[in-house]
Amino acid sequence: MSIDNNFSSIIKEIQKDINETLIRYPFPDKPKYLYDPLKYILKGKGKRLRPILLILTGNAFELEGSDLKNAAIAVELLHNFTLVHDDIMDNDQVRHGQPTVQKKWDTSTSILAGDAIFVEAQRLVGKINTNSQKIYNRFNDVALDVCVGQAYDKEYEGKVEITLDEYLHMIENKTGALIGLCVEIPALLSNQDSKVCEELRDFGYNIGKSFQIQDDILEIFSNTKSMGKSLGSDILSKKQTALTITARKMVPKEWSDFCYIIKDYSIEQMIESLRSFFIKHNIYSEAKSLSDKYLQNGLDNLLSVPKANRNELKLFTNYLKNREY
Amino acid sequence: MSIDNNFSSIIKEIQKDINETLIRYPFPDKPKYLYDPLKYILKGKGKRLRPILLILTGNAFELEGSDLKNAAIAVELLHNFTLVHDDIMDNDQVRHGQPTVQKKWDTSTSILAGDAIFVEAQRLVGKINTNSQKIYNRFNDVALDVCVGQAYDKEYEGKVEITLDEYLHMIENKTGALIGLCVEIPALLSNQDSKVCEELRDFGYNIGKSFQIQDDILEIFSNTKSMGKSLGSDILSKKQTALTITARKMVPKEWSDFCYIIKDYSIEQMIESLRSFFIKHNIYSEAKSLSDKYLQNGLDNLLSVPKANRNELKLFTNYLKNREY
Repeated sequence: MSIDNNFSSIIKEIQKDINETLIRYPFPDKPKYLYDPLKYILKGKGKRLRPILLILTGNAFELEGSDLKNAAIAVELLHNFTLVHDDIMDNDQVRHGQPTVQKKWDTSTSILAGDAIFVEAQRLVGKINTNSQKIYNRFNDVALDVCVGQAYDKEYEGKVEITLDEYLHMIENKTGALIGLCVEIPALLSNQDSKVCEELRDFGYNIGKSFQIQDDILEIFSNTKSMGKSLGSDILSKKQTALTITARKMVPKEWSDFCYIIKDYSIEQMIESLRSFFIKHNIYSEAKSLSDKYLQNGLDNLLSVPKANRNELKLFTNYLKNREY
Repeated sequence: MSIDNNFSSIIKEIQKDINETLIRYPFPDKPKYLYDPLKYILKGKGKRLRPILLILTGNAFELEGSDLKNAAIAVELLHNFTLVHDDIMDNDQVRHGQPTVQKKWDTSTSILAGDAIFVEAQRLVGKINTNSQKIYNRFNDVALDVCVGQAYDKEYEGKVEITLDEYLHMIENKTGALIGLCVEIPALLSNQDSKVCEELRDFGYNIGKSFQIQDDILEIFSNTKSMGKSLGSDILSKKQTALTITARKMVPKEWSDFCYIIKDYSIEQMIESLRSFFIKHNIYSEAKSLSDKYLQNGLDNLLSVPKANRNELKLFTNYLKNREY
């Protein structure tokens, strides 16, 4: 078996284990108003990238046992909490290959389900016995970062003056902080010093930026089936994306004219035209380079991880780059 | 100064201190989308009953210092988190004497504000240094209880088959668990044994039931200005209340006829008729007795607190009974 095949089977195995734990999560039956949506959310087809990253980092620090597993499930639950609430705020209809909670039930059900998932995440963190207070505090600092990122995301909607730096700061909070937590928690579980922890947080910020920029690209250049959420929904809701900000910056006049022309297009026409525009004006390649730059920065941060065990993390980081959804 | 006057000044002083801490809460300025609503929520005219109870219990166990204060603010933030989200779910317009967040801003702002208040509560719990993991776990067990209680509350809306026992179980979770936490945390901070902690949790369940039944009564028999939320809104939204369940149980035929008659009344007429009905059929007095019974049970639970310092807690418990809003 080649290294890549071996790596692929490692992450599939972790993903399978995470999915099984989520599907068998020991929720009570009642009240159905609360637990039916929670079971529904956890059977969604999430990629489980965050717990996979956390487990791989745990492997790199030669950890095993329940602390690591609880932390892995906790970050996935934290992530799902934010998705459930973001989906209400953004009025998204599909998530992880199935209707969103507020689409299948309603807004109230969805708010409460998100709240309870977040509480479950905290309860798992509460089971961690090594360096528990520190990990608890980092977990909640990051939860706040994610709220801050989401607030900027909402605040920036439709504002044409938002710069690339503001956008990058927003996604550091919204996406990067949690990715950083996935690599920092194992470091804290193995009592690494603060220098290593800081380097790993930076890894999160860098990979978060790379990941989100790529997400923006995939939303336009991928197809809805594999992306699992409505195609182009961010563009249509006037959210800031790496592509639109870069277009405004590189070819302001052309972009402004283009936006005027496409506003009455059907969604399919619009996506098609956006693809052509972004490629023609080198905006696609510019955004791709930016994403690759942050990915490389992230790989550099990994030098803080013991050399002998660094390889899987590097492979995983490159795997993120090559994903198609 | 009489004992009562002295007690009154003690709780006013604690309330003032809590309010000042909340108003001066060190939120950053940006993002405004997040922090403007948070500042707005914390300047609302809440009664601060939960942090007052927590501080009084701390006094009874002869505690002082930052752990106690952080816990007091944390329970108030947890309470406010649930109010902000409940107000969306119940479409309430007024809270703590001012428009609700979703009324002043919108649903998205309100969801995110609630999330962030909850995270802030967790961050305060994370600063507690005595018995920290145990307190963290209890805090989140109770947060889940509150979600469970809210889920039952929503599930029971409009269902005429809900019994008094089901209602009481619902409010044990929704209201009692958090009141219990307010007395249990100081016990944990002073390393009391589990028997004392259990007795204090029971205090919470009992007082929670007493408090919520009284709340149901006040919603009909108080006036909107002092109650601070829309008069009769629970009745109108077909929520279960101690009064309506008791009416269904004691005089089913009369209640059914009455509900048919009042359905086209104006809100003012409806409230007036409900008052007459509940008094005439002894439903008011029945609910009042039930509330008093649980209050007395709660007072009995207080025997687990050191005798020398128990008095303020008893006074506070009786003060809850005599509140008019």
